[in-house]
Amino acid sequence: MAPPKSLQTNMDVDYVITYRFATTDKSAAVAKFEELVQGLSSVGLDTEVRSGDKHSILLFVRVASDEHLFGEVYRSRVRDWIHGVRAAAPPKETREALESEPLYEAERLRIIYQLITNPIEDGGAGITPGEGEWKNVESIFALHDNAYNKDWIKKWATSYFLTTEDLDDIRNRLGEKIAFYFAFTQSYFTFLFFPAAFGFISWLFLGHFSPIYGIVNAIWCTVFTEWWKHQEVDLGVRWGVRGVSRIETKRRDFMHEKEITDPVTGERVLMFPSTKRLQRQLLQIPFALVAASLLGALIATCFGIEVFISEIYNGPFKSLLVFLPTGIATTVMPILSGILTNFATKLTEFENYQTHGAYETALTQKIFVLNFITSYLPIFLTAFVYVPFGTIIVPYLDVFSLTVRPFAENEKQMTAPKVGSFAINPDRLRKQVIYFTVTAQIVNLGMELVVPYLKRRGFSWFKQKQSERAAKRNGSGPAVSANDPPEDAAFLTRVREEAELGVYDVTSDLREMVIQFGYLSLFSVVWPFTPVSFLINDWFELRADAIKICVEMQRPTPWRADTIGPWLDSLSFLAWLGSLTTSALVYMFSNDGLGPGGHPKSIEGWALLLSVMLSEHLFILLRWGVRLAISKLDSPGLQKERRDRFLVRKKYFEESLSELKRLPTMADKGEEITRKSLEEDAREGSLRASTPESRFWSRQRGWRETVMVGKGLIEKAEVESSPERKKEL
Amino acid sequence: MAPPKSLQTNMDVDYVITYRFATTDKSAAVAKFEELVQGLSSVGLDTEVRSGDKHSILLFVRVASDEHLFGEVYRSRVRDWIHGVRAAAPPKETREALESEPLYEAERLRIIYQLITNPIEDGGAGITPGEGEWKNVESIFALHDNAYNKDWIKKWATSYFLTTEDLDDIRNRLGEKIAFYFAFTQSYFTFLFFPAAFGFISWLFLGHFSPIYGIVNAIWCTVFTEWWKHQEVDLGVRWGVRGVSRIETKRRDFMHEKEITDPVTGERVLMFPSTKRLQRQLLQIPFALVAASLLGALIATCFGIEVFISEIYNGPFKSLLVFLPTGIATTVMPILSGILTNFATKLTEFENYQTHGAYETALTQKIFVLNFITSYLPIFLTAFVYVPFGTIIVPYLDVFSLTVRPFAENEKQMTAPKVGSFAINPDRLRKQVIYFTVTAQIVNLGMELVVPYLKRRGFSWFKQKQSERAAKRNGSGPAVSANDPPEDAAFLTRVREEAELGVYDVTSDLREMVIQFGYLSLFSVVWPFTPVSFLINDWFELRADAIKICVEMQRPTPWRADTIGPWLDSLSFLAWLGSLTTSALVYMFSNDGLGPGGHPKSIEGWALLLSVMLSEHLFILLRWGVRLAISKLDSPGLQKERRDRFLVRKKYFEESLSELKRLPTMADKGEEITRKSLEEDAREGSLRASTPESRFWSRQRGWRETVMVGKGLIEKAEVESSPERKKEL
Repeated sequence: MAPPKSLQTNMDVDYVITYRFATTDKSAAVAKFEELVQGLSSVGLDTEVRSGDKHSILLFVRVASDEHLFGEVYRSRVRDWIHGVRAAAPPKETREALESEPLYEAERLRIIYQLITNPIEDGGAGITPGEGEWKNVESIFALHDNAYNKDWIKKWATSYFLTTEDLDDIRNRLGEKIAFYFAFTQSYFTFLFFPAAFGFISWLFLGHFSPIYGIVNAIWCTVFTEWWKHQEVDLGVRWGVRGVSRIETKRRDFMHEKEITDPVTGERVLMFPSTKRLQRQLLQIPFALVAASLLGALIATCFGIEVFISEIYNGPFKSLLVFLPTGIATTVMPILSGILTNFATKLTEFENYQTHGAYETALTQKIFVLNFITSYLPIFLTAFVYVPFGTIIVPYLDVFSLTVRPFAENEKQMTAPKVGSFAINPDRLRKQVIYFTVTAQIVNLGMELVVPYLKRRGFSWFKQKQSERAAKRNGSGPAVSANDPPEDAAFLTRVREEAELGVYDVTSDLREMVIQFGYLSLFSVVWPFTPVSFLINDWFELRADAIKICVEMQRPTPWRADTIGPWLDSLSFLAWLGSLTTSALVYMFSNDGLGPGGHPKSIEGWALLLSVMLSEHLFILLRWGVRLAISKLDSPGLQKERRDRFLVRKKYFEESLSELKRLPTMADKGEEITRKSLEEDAREGSLRASTPESRFWSRQRGWRETVMVGKGLIEKAEVESSPERKKEL
Repeated sequence: MAPPKSLQTNMDVDYVITYRFATTDKSAAVAKFEELVQGLSSVGLDTEVRSGDKHSILLFVRVASDEHLFGEVYRSRVRDWIHGVRAAAPPKETREALESEPLYEAERLRIIYQLITNPIEDGGAGITPGEGEWKNVESIFALHDNAYNKDWIKKWATSYFLTTEDLDDIRNRLGEKIAFYFAFTQSYFTFLFFPAAFGFISWLFLGHFSPIYGIVNAIWCTVFTEWWKHQEVDLGVRWGVRGVSRIETKRRDFMHEKEITDPVTGERVLMFPSTKRLQRQLLQIPFALVAASLLGALIATCFGIEVFISEIYNGPFKSLLVFLPTGIATTVMPILSGILTNFATKLTEFENYQTHGAYETALTQKIFVLNFITSYLPIFLTAFVYVPFGTIIVPYLDVFSLTVRPFAENEKQMTAPKVGSFAINPDRLRKQVIYFTVTAQIVNLGMELVVPYLKRRGFSWFKQKQSERAAKRNGSGPAVSANDPPEDAAFLTRVREEAELGVYDVTSDLREMVIQFGYLSLFSVVWPFTPVSFLINDWFELRADAIKICVEMQRPTPWRADTIGPWLDSLSFLAWLGSLTTSALVYMFSNDGLGPGGHPKSIEGWALLLSVMLSEHLFILLRWGVRLAISKLDSPGLQKERRDRFLVRKKYFEESLSELKRLPTMADKGEEITRKSLEEDAREGSLRASTPESRFWSRQRGWRETVMVGKGLIEKAEVESSPERKKEL
C-alpha cells in the first residue's frame, strides 16, 4: 500500500489526538481547539495539525525538549520512591538519575500521556478524552511501532515458549499492565503441560470421573494459583512496579457530597459518605439476583428445550430442531449479557468510587458474576439438576412441546414418558463439557480475530462507498488526503487508519483466561482431555492476542500494574469451588458416570455432603501447605528487592550513625581510684554524698573495686566458719 | 517489715544481676566475675556488688552517664526507623531527639537490658543469663517500683473499667508485650458484656441449644476477633511499635550447619537448610498423634469410669466414688501435660529456628494443640461420642467395673444394661460445660494467686529453718545480711527477696484467655449462662494478674510487641471451629437437648452435615463482611499513622523537588514566528530540515500556528463544496 519507509517511521510523534468537531458550531470548535493546543503547549509539548477524516482533525504531539521530559520523569520517580515503589530515592541530579536508569519507551509514553491528561493542578494539561469539556477530543493514542511489531509477531510465531526477556520486551513497549497479562497467560500455558500430560494418560487409562485425576487437578490448580501470586511479586520487582497499586489515582467522575478538611493532613478532602456508598452497593444483591434469574431462566429454557427435543421428541426434523436452543442461546445471550454488563457498569458508576482501583475492582466483581453464570450454569444444571433429578423433571418438559408443534406429526411424538420410565442420558454432561472446552474456545478465538477484521473491512468499504457517493454528488469532491504533502501522505494515511481502530482492553482477555481456568478447575474431571485442548488453544491465544494488539487495535497506552488485579481473587475462588464440584462429581458419577451404586438414584445425601466437606477442608489444608512452601522459595525478584533494601538500609545507617561517636568506655576509668584504700573511699563517699542513693553507689568506685569486693564475697562463702576474715570487707 | 523509705527507693539501680557460684571452684568463679564486671563496665555501666544469699552475690548495675544512654536510645530509634517502625528518622541531634520524644521507663529498661545481653559485636556486653559461659549469671532483673505498684493495684481494685490511659501506664512501666496482654483481656472483658446480657436473657427465655443464641454468639466471636485485630494496629501505632515484629532477633541457640556468603548483601550468613528443618518439623505429626492419644486415652478412661460409676454402678459409696475419675484426672493430667509441654519445647528447640519470632510461633502452636486436647476433648467426647453413640458404647463400659469392685456388694450393681435398654443422660453435657466454665475457672484463678504465695512462704520457711540449723552447727553463724551497711539493710533485704521470685511469663496468661474464649465459641450454646460467668471471672483475672506481677513475680523485663502473636491465629481458629460445633450441637440437641426428632437416635447424617456446612460457609461469609466493615473504621492510631506518613512524605517531596525548577513553558514561544508568512515558513523549513521527521515538525512552528492551521481545517469542513479556499493551507 504505502512505501515501507513511511510505515517504519513515526515522525517522532509521541501521541496523536483526534479532534472531532460538530459542523454546526464551528466557532466553538475552533475556540476549544485553540484552548487544547495552548494547554498542550503550556506543559511543554510541540504540536502539529493535519486533517483527519471528514469532521475531525489530527493533532500530533511530541515533547518539546528532553529537559522538560526528564524533569517529569524525575518527578514521577520521586513519587514512586515516596510511595515505597522504589527502595531508594533517585539521585538528585536529574541527568545522573536518567543515566543510571534509562527511560524505557513505555515509561516515556506513560509520562507523556499523564502530562496530557493529568489535571492542571497536578501539572498536566487536563485533557480528558471524550469527557466533560473535552468531549471533542475523541481519542489520544500513540502510533504503532511497525518494525517492532513485525519482529514481535514473527518471533512468536516461530517459538514455542516465551522467555522472560520476551516479556521484558512487552513491558518496555506496552507497559506493565499488558505485560502482566502476557506473563500470566504464558505461566498458565507452561503450567498446562503437566495436567495436559496427566489428563491425556487419565483419559486413556483412568476413564472419566477418576478421583485420582480430580485430586491431581485440584493440587495443580492450587499450586498454579499460589505460584502465580509468587511470580507476580517477582515480576513486579523485576519491572520496578511492586507497590504501584498502592498509588491511588483519583477518578475524575467521582462526585463528592461534601468537602471536609482532613484532620490529619489539614488538606481539603472531597468526601462521599461510605454509608451511602454501602447502601448503593447493596443494590448489587438485587442486581445479582435479577441477572442470575434472567440468565438462568434463559439457560434453563434452552436446556429444557434441548432435552425435550433430543430425548423426548421423536418426530421429523429432529436432527435440525436440536440446534434450535443453541440458536436461541447464541442470539439472545450476547444481547442479554450486553445489557447486563452495561447495567453493571452503570451500577458501579453509581456506587461512586473515589479511586480507579476501587472502581475497577467493583466492576470486575460484577462482570465475573455475570460471566460465571453464563459460562458455568449450563454445566451446573446438567450435573446437579438434570442427572440427579432428571427422572423427576423430564416428564414435565412437555411444556416445551410448543416449540416443535409445527413440525410434529402427532401428539405421541411429543409426549414425555411417565415418571420413572425415563432414563437420563449420562453422556450429556460430557458432551456439554466438550462443547464448552473445545468448540466454544475455538469459536471464541476465531471471533476475536475475525470479527474486528470484518468490522474494519466493512467500515472502510462503507466509507469508501460513502465518499464515492459524495464525490458523485459534489463533482470532483476530493478525499481528505488530497491536501497532504506528498512526502507525508503515506504516513498520514496510516495514522488515519490507526485512528479508526478500536481500543484494546486487556481485562477482557484476562477474563477469558480466568474463565478458561474455571472450566479446568470445576469440570475437567468430567473429561480429562480438557487440559490438552486448552494447551493447544492457548498457544494460539497468546499469538492471536499479540496480532490483535499490533493490527486490530490502536497502540495501547502503557499503564503500570503490579498484579493482574481482582482476577486473582477470581482464580482463588474458582480453585476453591473446584474442590467442591470435583468431589461432588466424582462421587455422583462414580462407576464411570453411572453413580455410586451403579445408578444415579443411589446417591446418598450424607455421603455426597461428607465427600464435599472432606474435599473442601483437605483443599484448604493443601492450599495452606502450598502457600507456606512457596513463601519459602527465593526468586531473582525477591533477591533484587532484598539487595535494594539492604543497600538503602546500609546507607541510612551510615548516614545517621556516622555522627554519633561511641563515648569512651568505662573500662579504663577507676585506674587511679583503686590505689586509694577501701576504708578511705567508704568514708570519703559517706561524707560527700548526701542521698542514700549516692552513698549506695559510692561504696565501690570503678569496676576494679567491684571485682575486688566481689572476690572477697565469693571467697568468704567458703570460709564462713572463720569469722575473723569478715573484716576484710 | 522494713521502713517505708527503703521500699520506695530503688537506689537508682537499673538492674540487679544475681551471680551464683559453685563453692568448689572458687578461682574460676572469681575470674568469671571479673570478666562480667569488666564487660558491663565496657558498655558504660556502673556496678556495685553486695552479698546475696549463701552462694550468690548481687551485682547492681546502672547507666554510668546519660550521654551514653542517649546514644543507645538514638541508635535504637534509628534502627526502628530503618525497619519502618517509625515513619520519620529521629532528629540527628541526640539531645533534640530525646527532648522531642522523651524516654519512657520501659524503653530505658529495655535498652539497658539489651546493652547487657546483646552480643559484643552488636555493641552489648554479651551476658546471657543461665546460658553457655554465663551459666553463673542466674538472673538479670529490674527492681519493682513499689510506689507505682501500690497505686496501680489500688486504682484497679476500685474501678470497673480500665481506660486507655491505664494501658498506656502499663506500657510505660512494663513494656508493650505485657501491655498488649492487658489490652487484650480488657477488650475481651468489655466485649463480654454483650454476650453476658444476651446469654442471660437466652438462659431465661430461650433455653439451651437455642439456634438464635448460637448465631448471635458466632457473630460476636467473629466481631470480637476481627475488632481486636483492628485494635492491635491502633495500639501498635499509639505506642509506636507497629512493625516491631518485623525486626527479627537472632536466637543464640541457633546452630548453623554451614556458613554462606549472602549473594545479595555480601554478608556472612549462618545457614540451616530448610529442607532439614522441614524434616524435623514433620516430627510434629507423630508428636501430635502421640500427645492426642495419650491425653485422649487418659480423658476417655476417666470419662468411661465416670459414666460407669454415675450411670451403671449402683452399689455403696457411689456418691464418693464418683469423684474418683476427677481425682485421677487432677493428678495425672498435670504431670502428663507437663511432660508433653517439656517435650514440645525440646522438639521446638530441635527444629532449630533462627529467630525468636519463629521459635515462639512454633512453640505456641504446639502448646495450643496440647491445651486444645486437655481443655476441649472431654466436652467433645460427651457431645459427639457419648450422646449419639452412648447407647451402643455404654454397655461395654463394665470393663471399668474393676475400679469399684472392692466396694460393690454384688455383681448386679456393676452390670451394664443390655444394648438398647440404656438411656443416655442428656444433662451430662451441660454439667460438664458448667464444670469447665465455672468451677475450673475459679479453681484456676485461685491457683494462680495461692500457689506462688504458698511456694514463696514455704521456701522462706525452709530457708529460715536451714539457716537456724546452720547457725546451731556453726555457733554464731550470721545471716548474709549481717554485713549490710545499716542504711542499706532494708533495701538489700527487699532485693534479696525479689531475687527469689519467679519470672513472669505473659504467654501463659494469654493462653488462659484464649482457651476461655474457646469455651465461649465452641460450647456456650450448651449453657448460655457461660459468658456471665466469664465476665465475672475476668474482672478478677485482670486484677489478679496485676497483683501477680507486682507481688509474686520479679519485675518483668519490658519487651516490645505489636500483637498478641500467634495466639491471634488460635482465636481465629476457635471462632471458625465454633461455627462447626455450635451448628452441630444445635441440630443434635434440638428439642431442648433431646435431639431433632425428640430422641438422639433420630439424628440424620445428611442433615447434620448440611447444617454444619451451611453454618461454616455462612460463618466465612460473615467474617469477610465483618473484616470489610472493620477495615473501613478509622481510629486514632490509624489517623496518627496517616499523619506521620503524610508529614514525612511532604518533607521528602519538598526536599527532593525543591531543586527541580519547572522549565519555562512553551506558551509564549513562537510569538515572533507567527509574523512570518506561512509560505515562507514552509519553504524555509524544507530547506533547513534534512530528515522527513524534522520537515514534518517544522510545518507549523509554535502553538499559534497550529491553532491557525487547525482553524482553517475546521472551517474548510463546512465549505468543502467551494474548492477555491483550499489554497489557504
